[in-house]
Amino acid sequence: MDYKDRLARARLALEQSRLDALLITHLPNISYLCGFTGSAGVLVVSQSEYVFFTDGRYTEQAHQEVKGVRIKILQGKSAPAAAANWMATQKSLRRIGIGAAHMTVAERGAFAKALPRKARLVAAPAIVERMRMVKDPEEIAKIRAACHLGVALFDRLLRVVRPGVSETQVAGELEFEARRLGADQMAFSTIIAGGRRSALPHGRASQAKLPLRGFVVCDFGVILANYCSDMTRTLHLGRPPMEARRVYQAVREAQQAALDAVKPGVTVGEVDGAARKSLQKHGLGKFFTHSTGHGVGLEIHESPRIAAGQMDLLQPGMVITIEPGVYLPGKVGIRIEDTVVVTDSGCEILTPCPKDLVVV
Amino acid sequence: MDYKDRLARARLALEQSRLDALLITHLPNISYLCGFTGSAGVLVVSQSEYVFFTDGRYTEQAHQEVKGVRIKILQGKSAPAAAANWMATQKSLRRIGIGAAHMTVAERGAFAKALPRKARLVAAPAIVERMRMVKDPEEIAKIRAACHLGVALFDRLLRVVRPGVSETQVAGELEFEARRLGADQMAFSTIIAGGRRSALPHGRASQAKLPLRGFVVCDFGVILANYCSDMTRTLHLGRPPMEARRVYQAVREAQQAALDAVKPGVTVGEVDGAARKSLQKHGLGKFFTHSTGHGVGLEIHESPRIAAGQMDLLQPGMVITIEPGVYLPGKVGIRIEDTVVVTDSGCEILTPCPKDLVVV
Repeated sequence: MDYKDRLARARLALEQSRLDALLITHLPNISYLCGFTGSAGVLVVSQSEYVFFTDGRYTEQAHQEVKGVRIKILQGKSAPAAAANWMATQKSLRRIGIGAAHMTVAERGAFAKALPRKARLVAAPAIVERMRMVKDPEEIAKIRAACHLGVALFDRLLRVVRPGVSETQVAGELEFEARRLGADQMAFSTIIAGGRRSALPHGRASQAKLPLRGFVVCDFGVILANYCSDMTRTLHLGRPPMEARRVYQAVREAQQAALDAVKPGVTVGEVDGAARKSLQKHGLGKFFTHSTGHGVGLEIHESPRIAAGQMDLLQPGMVITIEPGVYLPGKVGIRIEDTVVVTDSGCEILTPCPKDLVVV
Repeated sequence: MDYKDRLARARLALEQSRLDALLITHLPNISYLCGFTGSAGVLVVSQSEYVFFTDGRYTEQAHQEVKGVRIKILQGKSAPAAAANWMATQKSLRRIGIGAAHMTVAERGAFAKALPRKARLVAAPAIVERMRMVKDPEEIAKIRAACHLGVALFDRLLRVVRPGVSETQVAGELEFEARRLGADQMAFSTIIAGGRRSALPHGRASQAKLPLRGFVVCDFGVILANYCSDMTRTLHLGRPPMEARRVYQAVREAQQAALDAVKPGVTVGEVDGAARKSLQKHGLGKFFTHSTGHGVGLEIHESPRIAAGQMDLLQPGMVITIEPGVYLPGKVGIRIEDTVVVTDSGCEILTPCPKDLVVV
């Protein structure tokens, strides 16, 4: 990864926002800018310096991972305390930008207390989050690898999904296979939601047993070399009634409509609208109770949000999910999700896996 | 769980802090007070009402889980937006307490903007976190069950740990067994750190292969019925050199010294001191680079912190970890960890599992 270039771009954005420094506490942002993957750190990007703070547990790891940035570890001090100490000695730091979306009120208070009166903490624009929206080729390759690993899990899943097996058992087999194929960990709690539970859009795998007949929503992702994958397929146990087939087909059409809408220059709101309009034609609009998708990268949910009214413009290199769903409360749920990368003329599906209704 | 009693106690603490309401956004606090286990919600505890807000995805789940509290869902609104809307109409809410340790600066800003001028958001004391420190019998039973499941995993681990196997493979087998035994998910990224990697206190399982000789730190926990377990054992591949045995023994003694110090009325700082003093006797004090432990419950890390200078007094019903470790950079690391519940006269170990050095 070209950390030097990323740091330089962050510094440039700093100037444009008339900030003397950016105080970065959100770990994925830190990892993006300097490569650190531990669980405690603070990065300060100022007009003249890049300084990374961590604590004694990460001395070795920080020196292995972080390049081109000064590393500071104060014996017995947490990373935020060490960063505050150092910033307090830097007279040139007057306007310090913070990530308001991630810093807690208490963290902000502690920084403010440690800094001299002349220093001000101001909410910075989402500089790093916006940089992260557009992936460079190395990142896309990593996300593609994670997604392909995800697709391979689906084959395993098909071999274990059957009536009477518990949802956690299916999730367990899938996660075991993920580890076997080299995943670092799962990107989120695997969702296996069978029968009536499929109508819960966020039905984490439970101890419920899969029914003789009904849909099973399977939503899962891995982290491979720090990058996430995300996909959902919905299959059917037993012979599906006509109505179930009809609703499945409607979701599939809506997903295709949204995929077809993805290309540079289109707003993410328009992509959401394409899926929504398609479901409305089938009278199912009101059962699509969430947004169409989200960015994927170092985090499983990152910018942009593919939702109604959102004005972010798609650009080549953005990686997003397209995942419309329909949930008939107490009855059935269906969701179909791919992760895609925006190309010059449309998009490439990073999770190539059949979408015809699979009947088990 | 006696949610009614918990809500009443939270309300009482509210009065004592001269707050008109508590605005709760931290999900484990919400789960503790009203039982909701979804991923989006806001709970308002006022002098006259309990109101829970979530969004359309959780309509069904909220009505299943949340009892004794009014549930409000506004079509197309997020839980915070719905809560802000409602609070803005409640003239009696002047001093509203927020959890500064969990609410982000941006969330606080959005609430402040939506509320009338007379309403003030003030940092509340850690009311719910302090209630959660002392577990009731039902909670202790759940944590015990989670811990016993954790212990069972160690047997499985011993069957797969051997030179040449990758750390992720070991983690995968352990996590698969966890699922098979009914765990909802792992409580944190499983740590399997072999050979020189054992010296990284937070060495998540990597693709590195276990060496022919050396320590392997194994730190893992599950979530079962919403409650976490946490334990660490360190084993040795191949015949351990005398020095390795000596350091292992020192860590074991330090862990025992801290366990012996646990009883009601003692400060958590004293427990930390007991482990630290024991290691100092062996000249290993400076290689113990983290604190001795933390509370465990609905979250894997919760109050109190068992660290130097911390003045929380132990009380019967508190559940904490005791996990001293020694890390010789670039060489070896050893950590031994149990989860214990404070009893009337000392503590009960919830993770009963041998601590003699296991040589594989």
